[in-house]
Amino acid sequence: MTSTALLTDHYELTMVQAALHSGAAHRRSVFELFGRRLPDGRRYGVVAGTGRLLEALADFRFEHSQIEHLARRGVVDETTLEFLREYRFTGNIDGYPEGEAYFPGSPLLVVEGTFAEAVVLETLALSIYNHDCAIASAASRMVHAAGGRPCIEMGSRRTHEWSAVAAARAAYIAGFATTSNLQAGQQFAIPTAGTSAHSFTLLHDDEESAFRAQVESLGRDTTLLVDTYDVPRAVELAVRLAGTELGGVRLDSGDLVAQAHEVRAQLDRLGATGTKIVVTSDLDEYAIAALAAAPVDRYGVGTSLVTGSGHPAAGLVYKLVSREIDGVLVDVAKRSKNKGTVGGRKYAMRRLDGDDVAQAEVIGIGERPVGDDNDRELLVPLVRDGQVLVDTGVESARARHSESMSQLPPRAHRLSRGEPVIPTIFVDDEPASAILRQ
Amino acid sequence: MTSTALLTDHYELTMVQAALHSGAAHRRSVFELFGRRLPDGRRYGVVAGTGRLLEALADFRFEHSQIEHLARRGVVDETTLEFLREYRFTGNIDGYPEGEAYFPGSPLLVVEGTFAEAVVLETLALSIYNHDCAIASAASRMVHAAGGRPCIEMGSRRTHEWSAVAAARAAYIAGFATTSNLQAGQQFAIPTAGTSAHSFTLLHDDEESAFRAQVESLGRDTTLLVDTYDVPRAVELAVRLAGTELGGVRLDSGDLVAQAHEVRAQLDRLGATGTKIVVTSDLDEYAIAALAAAPVDRYGVGTSLVTGSGHPAAGLVYKLVSREIDGVLVDVAKRSKNKGTVGGRKYAMRRLDGDDVAQAEVIGIGERPVGDDNDRELLVPLVRDGQVLVDTGVESARARHSESMSQLPPRAHRLSRGEPVIPTIFVDDEPASAILRQ
Repeated sequence: MTSTALLTDHYELTMVQAALHSGAAHRRSVFELFGRRLPDGRRYGVVAGTGRLLEALADFRFEHSQIEHLARRGVVDETTLEFLREYRFTGNIDGYPEGEAYFPGSPLLVVEGTFAEAVVLETLALSIYNHDCAIASAASRMVHAAGGRPCIEMGSRRTHEWSAVAAARAAYIAGFATTSNLQAGQQFAIPTAGTSAHSFTLLHDDEESAFRAQVESLGRDTTLLVDTYDVPRAVELAVRLAGTELGGVRLDSGDLVAQAHEVRAQLDRLGATGTKIVVTSDLDEYAIAALAAAPVDRYGVGTSLVTGSGHPAAGLVYKLVSREIDGVLVDVAKRSKNKGTVGGRKYAMRRLDGDDVAQAEVIGIGERPVGDDNDRELLVPLVRDGQVLVDTGVESARARHSESMSQLPPRAHRLSRGEPVIPTIFVDDEPASAILRQ
Repeated sequence: MTSTALLTDHYELTMVQAALHSGAAHRRSVFELFGRRLPDGRRYGVVAGTGRLLEALADFRFEHSQIEHLARRGVVDETTLEFLREYRFTGNIDGYPEGEAYFPGSPLLVVEGTFAEAVVLETLALSIYNHDCAIASAASRMVHAAGGRPCIEMGSRRTHEWSAVAAARAAYIAGFATTSNLQAGQQFAIPTAGTSAHSFTLLHDDEESAFRAQVESLGRDTTLLVDTYDVPRAVELAVRLAGTELGGVRLDSGDLVAQAHEVRAQLDRLGATGTKIVVTSDLDEYAIAALAAAPVDRYGVGTSLVTGSGHPAAGLVYKLVSREIDGVLVDVAKRSKNKGTVGGRKYAMRRLDGDDVAQAEVIGIGERPVGDDNDRELLVPLVRDGQVLVDTGVESARARHSESMSQLPPRAHRLSRGEPVIPTIFVDDEPASAILRQ
């Protein structure tokens, strides 16, 4: 595997150098990854990236060529290079299970180790979580807007080539049915699917030659792209060539609502009542919702999904909340304007009512909050003494997402701008000392 | 190197299968990568990703495990797997040099080969260009807003971990001075730099211990973060510990304009007249411009840079414009509503006036447009018979960007929303048959 160790900001390593100099590098420390708020107007966020981070952790080793590079550039001194050469994360990580909903202040990760070993993971952890949570959070809204109709992830071409692979994974966790991305198919065992492009039709002498080639080669259950020239003529041709068993037709332009009605009526007249209509033009959760009453069977989503539907980064931060002084962990918090941090190690429960509907995110500071029997524990042990304890696959995360969604109040799934659907309550020595809403 | 072959949409391979079936797979074809329009309100775009694509092309080989995966999943048939096993791009690519400005309709890449060998590059080429051009286009505006003050790229934690590396590269091409990303430093020989984080200060017993450790270990020319507690006290402490040779202080919160004035006055009073002020809180091109009159020395830019400052994807497409029929290349263009394509292979020149200021993007269809001596040719040969012909490094691209910017009319650099700064003129049989503006 490729080393992930240099996917790291320069200052993480120079801070290690200065902390090795002062001796504080070895202080036991707790860092937390969380969001001070949700992206503007969002009612919940979705945790994704956990599995990817845990896999990247195994490859977080400074290789010889990387050490050489750091030495040559004079990034850090010899003592620090020595530390990096031997670097292995040997600490503990607790975190929200992948797929879970989160809210302002939710401690998505609690990383405990020496300062030096925990601080160098900051950049990589944030890169993975800020990307994957942004995509999963947008994807979850789209899946709900689609109301049971399958969503197809097809945004690879609209984002960095490796972001695309992670986006396919995050979308699948949030309930997308398939992806177009073949690397995601191989790497994460996600189902892949596709139709065809205008270029395929244009390549041939005419639409008939193109459709015939596709149907003969890929079978009658293929999906034909019918908007290269004239939609009604293409639909007629498609059913003539493939018969009424034609799998689907794709619309990628124009007024999708009106066209879906026209094409459905035409397909039904031709007897192709089982042929699906796939729509794919610049969809986001709002466009999907606007098609709810149209006879559409599947939604293909590209740009909007891979760019987080207006929020391409989840706004998560990684902050020191506690560190050892004289053998005791002592809380810390900075006081910068608008960027304050709640010090102290966090514990988290989701308060559920008698019908298992979420009422609040309860965050204990320094100790596990006392809840009632129905409260659901949110943090699970992910890493102990450097060893990964959990399954990093997508299926368990997809199941967790579905379960988590079923416990949110129905207003969580309104698409309009709103507040976080449940409040976050910090429980300190005194109960419910602070309530943080967006 | 990791194979890039599966960074590809499922349908690219099924189209190859169907085209192998019809025989059209071997037709000579020309695909072009271009934008129908610039992102809303932008006056120019910046080409980036060229070097990355050319390097990824060398790794675009279907490895045994990938072929096995495609076979196991039944993505394509045995004939197609055979084609993929032997796949090498053997065609030609012309393109705009990396760093160049572009406009609506500019043919950033012209890819010529068989349909099958050119179509399978679509997803990878678009992923790289849509990401890297988006970042470079935003970065270029920030660099101009900074008016000669260095810009520091520090957005790694706000985007996918490998996007971060590409973003650092794109920003450097567009004129950023340094990046925080160590991988980009090693992989692309970009200068890296950093300051320190609040966690470093909080780790220590007090600010004085933290500052002392940093100054002793990293030298007096280090940059100290002064807003963890109280800014004036931290500035005083910083100069007391490092002396008037202190390299810099960083402000990461609060009202940056007011604070910069206060801190500059304090530093000057303390004799630290050479100490730089670095500001870093949620900057974009507009915030940078708003700080033009403030005594700020360097801008650190994160989220806004790596998310393309509101436009995280450049909106570029890859379209078939011509293909062989009976041994002759014949133009093609689809007629979908709002998504029409101008058929025919393109040639491009930038029309310059007597003072070398750009007047128009002149695109010839099917043949090189006849210009005057001052017109500048835009397309250069990048690949011939599968062999890369050009330098893929960042320094030549950075130089090209600087040169290209110097030829744009000054209104190109206004930050307000505007039209593309020069019109795109398509030249067909008759001269100037069409003028495309956004």
